[in-house]
Amino acid sequence: MQVLNLQDILELPKYSRINLINTISGPRSGNLIGTTSTDGIYNLAIFNTVTHIGASPPLLGFIMRPLTVERHTYDNIKATGFYTINPINTSIYKAAHQTSAKYTSDISEFEAVGLQPEMIHNFKAPFVKESTYGIAMSYKEEYPIKSNGTVLIIGQIEHIILPQNGLTDDYSLNHDELDTVAIGGLDTYYQTSLLDRLKYARP
Amino acid sequence: MQVLNLQDILELPKYSRINLINTISGPRSGNLIGTTSTDGIYNLAIFNTVTHIGASPPLLGFIMRPLTVERHTYDNIKATGFYTINPINTSIYKAAHQTSAKYTSDISEFEAVGLQPEMIHNFKAPFVKESTYGIAMSYKEEYPIKSNGTVLIIGQIEHIILPQNGLTDDYSLNHDELDTVAIGGLDTYYQTSLLDRLKYARP
Repeated sequence: MQVLNLQDILELPKYSRINLINTISGPRSGNLIGTTSTDGIYNLAIFNTVTHIGASPPLLGFIMRPLTVERHTYDNIKATGFYTINPINTSIYKAAHQTSAKYTSDISEFEAVGLQPEMIHNFKAPFVKESTYGIAMSYKEEYPIKSNGTVLIIGQIEHIILPQNGLTDDYSLNHDELDTVAIGGLDTYYQTSLLDRLKYARP
Repeated sequence: MQVLNLQDILELPKYSRINLINTISGPRSGNLIGTTSTDGIYNLAIFNTVTHIGASPPLLGFIMRPLTVERHTYDNIKATGFYTINPINTSIYKAAHQTSAKYTSDISEFEAVGLQPEMIHNFKAPFVKESTYGIAMSYKEEYPIKSNGTVLIIGQIEHIILPQNGLTDDYSLNHDELDTVAIGGLDTYYQTSLLDRLKYARP
C-alpha cells in the first residue's frame, strides 16, 4: 500500500491533483443540465455531482464551481428558475463530454456537440432528445461553500419523462435497461451492469 | 414515453416514491464511512452521496439525513472531528449494505456485518480493511438544508491509502482495476467497466 498525505497531495502537479481528487470518491452519476438563456439560447453542460437530497418533496442537488468566471448554467437557472437534468448513456457520452469545452454564451452547446434540444410540456428549459429519460427541475435554494467558493444548488423535481420500460414494478429505475453511464473524475466513462439488488437491511 | 408530474410523485406509495427519487440521478458512488464513538466503539455506515467539492484544498462532501433521530456517524464526526471514507467493492457489497440496518450505538457495525476495522497512521477513525483503498477525512463545515432538514457535511482529505496498482501515471484512479461498485438508490449495486477515457474538451 502507498500513502499520500495532505502535503503530498497539495504538492502534486495541478492536473495530477485534479485527477486524484476527482476520481477518489468512486464512479458517480453523469448528467447533462439544460437551460435557456435570457437571449433564448439553449445551454447544455455536463455535471458529475448530481445527487439525491430527499424524496418528500423530491429534491436533487449539484455543485457549481466557483462563480469567479462566467457560469452560463448558473446564470440561466437564476434568470429563469428552471433547468433539466438528462442522464448520459453509452450513445452520447462523447457529445456529452464535449459540452465541457468553454463555448461563449452566444453558442448553443446542443448545436456545437450535435445533440437535439427538445421543448416539451411547456417547460422553460430544453431536454436532451437523445437522453433515455429527463427530469424537469425548479430552482429552490443555494448554499455557497465557505471552504472553496463552490455552490450547492438545490432544485425540486417538477416532472419526470421516461420510457415505458424504464421503471420496475416498485418504481426503481433499472440503469442497465436505461443504459446510464457513470463518470470517474472529469474524463472517464464507465458502463454499469447490475450486480445485485438487496433487501431492506435489519439488524 | 410516460410523464410523472410532481403531484403523481407525491401521491406514490412511500417506498415507490423513495425508490424513484433515489434512483433517478443515476448510478452513484457507494462508500462506507467509519467513525469512532466517544465510548470507543467503531461505527460504520453506508452512504451513496459522497461527492467531489474541490481539489485545492482536497474536499469531499456528503448528505446526512435529518437529525431528527440518532445519527451515530454525525455524532461521532462532531465529537472527534475525524472520519474515513472507504469505497465498496464487489467482495463486500453485501456486508456494506447490511450496515444500513438500525443497530444501537453500543454495537459496532464492523462486528455485526463481518468487516474488519483497521487503525492506521494514528488516525482517530477506523478504516475498512477489506476496502480497496481508504480516505482519512477531517471535518470542516456543515450546511443544514432548509428544504428538508438534511445536512451537507464537508471534510478535507488528510491522507489517502491505496494499493500500488491503484493509480494511473497521471493520478487518475482506475475503478475497473480497483473493483469499485456504484449504487442505484438504496439497494441496487452495479459493477462498473471502463467504457472510455476522453481528452480535455476544447471548442
